[in-house]
Amino acid sequence: MKKNKVVIVGTGMVGMSYAYSMVNQGACEELVLIDINKERARGEAIDLNHGLSFAPRKMNIYAGDYSDCKDAYIICITAGAIQIEGETRLDLLHKNSKIMRSIIDEIKKSGFDGILLIATNPVDIMTYVAQKLSGFDKSKVIGSGTTLDSARLRYTLGEKLDVNPKDINAYVMGEHGDSQFVAWSYALCGVQPIYQIASRKDSKLTFDELEKIEDTVRNIAYEIIKCKNSTYYGIGMALTRITKAILENENSILTVSSYLNGEYGHEDVYIAVPSIVNQDGVREVIHLALDTTEKKKLDDSIKIMKENIEKLDLN
Amino acid sequence: MKKNKVVIVGTGMVGMSYAYSMVNQGACEELVLIDINKERARGEAIDLNHGLSFAPRKMNIYAGDYSDCKDAYIICITAGAIQIEGETRLDLLHKNSKIMRSIIDEIKKSGFDGILLIATNPVDIMTYVAQKLSGFDKSKVIGSGTTLDSARLRYTLGEKLDVNPKDINAYVMGEHGDSQFVAWSYALCGVQPIYQIASRKDSKLTFDELEKIEDTVRNIAYEIIKCKNSTYYGIGMALTRITKAILENENSILTVSSYLNGEYGHEDVYIAVPSIVNQDGVREVIHLALDTTEKKKLDDSIKIMKENIEKLDLN
Amino acid sequence: MKKNKVVIVGTGMVGMSYAYSMVNQGACEELVLIDINKERARGEAIDLNHGLSFAPRKMNIYAGDYSDCKDAYIICITAGAIQIEGETRLDLLHKNSKIMRSIIDEIKKSGFDGILLIATNPVDIMTYVAQKLSGFDKSKVIGSGTTLDSARLRYTLGEKLDVNPKDINAYVMGEHGDSQFVAWSYALCGVQPIYQIASRKDSKLTFDELEKIEDTVRNIAYEIIKCKNSTYYGIGMALTRITKAILENENSILTVSSYLNGEYGHEDVYIAVPSIVNQDGVREVIHLALDTTEKKKLDDSIKIMKENIEKLDLN
Amino acid sequence: MKKNKVVIVGTGMVGMSYAYSMVNQGACEELVLIDINKERARGEAIDLNHGLSFAPRKMNIYAGDYSDCKDAYIICITAGAIQIEGETRLDLLHKNSKIMRSIIDEIKKSGFDGILLIATNPVDIMTYVAQKLSGFDKSKVIGSGTTLDSARLRYTLGEKLDVNPKDINAYVMGEHGDSQFVAWSYALCGVQPIYQIASRKDSKLTFDELEKIEDTVRNIAYEIIKCKNSTYYGIGMALTRITKAILENENSILTVSSYLNGEYGHEDVYIAVPSIVNQDGVREVIHLALDTTEKKKLDDSIKIMKENIEKLDLN
Repeated sequence: MKKNKVVIVGTGMVGMSYAYSMVNQGACEELVLIDINKERARGEAIDLNHGLSFAPRKMNIYAGDYSDCKDAYIICITAGAIQIEGETRLDLLHKNSKIMRSIIDEIKKSGFDGILLIATNPVDIMTYVAQKLSGFDKSKVIGSGTTLDSARLRYTLGEKLDVNPKDINAYVMGEHGDSQFVAWSYALCGVQPIYQIASRKDSKLTFDELEKIEDTVRNIAYEIIKCKNSTYYGIGMALTRITKAILENENSILTVSSYLNGEYGHEDVYIAVPSIVNQDGVREVIHLALDTTEKKKLDDSIKIMKENIEKLDLN
Repeated sequence: MKKNKVVIVGTGMVGMSYAYSMVNQGACEELVLIDINKERARGEAIDLNHGLSFAPRKMNIYAGDYSDCKDAYIICITAGAIQIEGETRLDLLHKNSKIMRSIIDEIKKSGFDGILLIATNPVDIMTYVAQKLSGFDKSKVIGSGTTLDSARLRYTLGEKLDVNPKDINAYVMGEHGDSQFVAWSYALCGVQPIYQIASRKDSKLTFDELEKIEDTVRNIAYEIIKCKNSTYYGIGMALTRITKAILENENSILTVSSYLNGEYGHEDVYIAVPSIVNQDGVREVIHLALDTTEKKKLDDSIKIMKENIEKLDLN
Repeated sequence: MKKNKVVIVGTGMVGMSYAYSMVNQGACEELVLIDINKERARGEAIDLNHGLSFAPRKMNIYAGDYSDCKDAYIICITAGAIQIEGETRLDLLHKNSKIMRSIIDEIKKSGFDGILLIATNPVDIMTYVAQKLSGFDKSKVIGSGTTLDSARLRYTLGEKLDVNPKDINAYVMGEHGDSQFVAWSYALCGVQPIYQIASRKDSKLTFDELEKIEDTVRNIAYEIIKCKNSTYYGIGMALTRITKAILENENSILTVSSYLNGEYGHEDVYIAVPSIVNQDGVREVIHLALDTTEKKKLDDSIKIMKENIEKLDLN
Repeated sequence: MKKNKVVIVGTGMVGMSYAYSMVNQGACEELVLIDINKERARGEAIDLNHGLSFAPRKMNIYAGDYSDCKDAYIICITAGAIQIEGETRLDLLHKNSKIMRSIIDEIKKSGFDGILLIATNPVDIMTYVAQKLSGFDKSKVIGSGTTLDSARLRYTLGEKLDVNPKDINAYVMGEHGDSQFVAWSYALCGVQPIYQIASRKDSKLTFDELEKIEDTVRNIAYEIIKCKNSTYYGIGMALTRITKAILENENSILTVSSYLNGEYGHEDVYIAVPSIVNQDGVREVIHLALDTTEKKKLDDSIKIMKENIEKLDLN
């Protein structure tokens, strides 16, 4: 297994924004692009290679096929259909499960033994599907979860408080979707609880605004889609971030979609919770003592995940 | 004037690949996106901002308008029409000149006094147009030229010789287009002339292959376009490279499109030649003693540029 | 004023570790070294310049004199005597105040109008001295404070909890010296209070251990000095960190030594407290609602600072 | 073998400047410091660890012993005595060979199977000694050679021509010492031969100056030593550069000290020549067609190396 080899399955805008970010940040040594449209993957690899003279590190980038998965350390799956008008959400779920099955089959055949990073939506369910179909170690199958939503929250709070978003320590938890929520009781600016800041008389932030911010974060994807049809740059950099945490064995805390095995009172489900990520995948799920409202939101979000999972046939 | 402020005009795939590369490499402090489609620019700025938590530096990114150009250090123009079937190349030239005029008018109104970096195609002519219409100092109006083509050459030779493309010192000169050529008499692997390498009996490279490589580099864009409709990642990183050379006052040698004022026996034309780039733009055009064949190719390329320029009404 | 010009006064091991870190991280464009021993400064500049081919960015590095301060954005003062056996702490204070006076005189003469970053020990008092003698804006005179001590705390807690030190959000406050303390009530692993972690039955951390960690952080400098005579790499990188927060206008939270003007119930003193740092220096002191024990420790630490200041003649 | 593990033997100023550069550039994941003075190594590791919160990547840094060499990818040996007054150069040679023997013995015992990078002076001979004593594959034992001298040349020429040193393509070859020489016939600014530049009437460079520059580069170490006793920052960054070429499998051209096996008409000697460096060490020695004067200088330099080697007892 090559510690510095990453395979991306799906060269749509999300996959390619991830790939391009990887090249610009010099985040791995070998980068393989796989797509059903082989010509597309080939064109993308060429376009990326032309940037290498201006990249921070030498890389080996090429369009490949599933046999290239054998010795990869990470495979990131971004492939998937997009909801079409007239189609139900459940239709999409079935369609993408089918796609996932075909991809996982090929990956298994290759003899891959690394970490599977899922970005296909609905990401929490697709991560569950990928784990069930592959039978891979649960800690080695990870979804991008709310890593991006947490970044959106950090950016939005950072703007509001005029502070570097990297100094906002706050998470969006739950589904990467409508049932997500902000763990406000654990949200901080530096080390200062946001609730403490909002309680001050002259604060830049009121409790009302917190609610608005949570709404904004939940719905900003729709707003971006209105402007430019889809969203990909933010998620591309989020995937690079997770990749580095794995390849560089960081033990960093990220709100990836992790398998719950009793944590937060739930099991047999993938959902975004703060997790410690290193070269082994998710080393540990962090169990925050959420307040009653937040816990209820997490339970509800998980319930939705489970209802969806039940509708799928994963045998 | 803010030394770290960059404005991008045009948020199509080229403009945005440049912007995304800038964010991933942390190459400036303030980044402004301008587009006729204001909603598009706004959506792109939001999408980029969501990556800031994962970027190497804090940046201030927003959709703006031409008044934001006032104190910018660099404005990069990527806006422009694309050749449509049935349209002649000349039609495109007229169309993009008109677009350029409208952009330059707005930039002049803003009071901008920095460096203008042109990426709109046909880039050498558009750079000429931008300089004429703006009346800006010739050394402060620069085109991306063959920076990307040189990178393509370096990558291709690097692959062939199994050497880091950064160690290939070789330039594509002339038009960023069909009349471009490789200055083979000055092409090196490290410090070793490619001609010397190709002369060796057991060489990995033959003179025939050099010609093939030159063809590949000239036509690879068409190949990428066949695979994925257009090319943007390579050029995005090339623009970031030029931007850094300017903002970090590098005095680096790049084959940007520079104004000739007697160099190579030509004047009043913009064409890609090796140039020393620093915070003042093009500090100096490097005059290589090309061999006869190469000189002829440069002359021909410049002739084509001049014929095209003459067809334009730049008053 | 050049936004990218940094002057270092004092080319001892601390000053040079800072300079070398700046070169390796490519953190500014122009770097000037000043030392009473001009030959030393010249030798150091040459040695650094030889690394430029391997550095992430082009820099202009040279040994200079105080006239070079005129258009600098940051001057970092690291010069100062070290406590000699038989000398009292007060002797050192007088000696370094005298050195500081001679430096500040020269800086004022140069017409410098940027940000003064003090690293000379005892740093909180020397920052106070530098501000009084210069008369510069209080928000533009900053001490390195406990930036390094906080990093030591983050490293130590990170090791203990097996988490990336960048995910430990915890501050050492007060004097950069024996009266410093950890603001445990605001210390977090990710967003999880350390107190909450220590309260858990099976925790890797006990309350007893927290006290030991605080002691370790306070005394680790003595331990390093026992091993290698002095400490400089950690502080070198801490100074680079502060420099970036300023030059890149980050609005980042750092425990620099800031001027208190009513915050925490104190005034007319410099002490390390979490502060928002940007291109204007300290934009804002963050007022944490410390618990009674911590507040007492801060008061005591400030008292010691004030007693020392009173012994100095700063007219 | 861990692809990202580097061991440094010798924590003097050279070893530590290398280590500190590695931390600031985030160039590996695991960094082990070994020194006969175990306390020294421990202190250095602690000091470096305190910088991790400000470093570009998470690293695992610690003081170790030779058992840690087992799974390292690179061991860099910087340990060695320094010439003392009254001692002959030959005395030093014997002394350092003895030290080298003791280190190599321990490394062999560990089961190490990676790449040995030698920085101990006289480096070309010590690299020979290390290879002979270890019996390791010749391509996997490398000396730092004239990597630093080439950087000095590039900096000096860059200053003279006002060009980014990274755009100076020129090598110092031969001994890292007094018999070194510049391969002027292969020295370029960008792609333009320095000889061509010096031939021009109005050139910034004359042939006389080239000789002076060569002298400067050869003797600048003595000048630095006069100013600050020893030189370490430049070499520190040169070692990081070589390390990255290996760990990131760059196939980069560097003037490391390589084993000649017929190249340049010599064999059984280590000397600095341009070499392609990748994850396997020196993949290939580049054979430049030096002009007669240069070839003579290389022969002389090699002769000196061989004479020295003969005086050593390496059985």
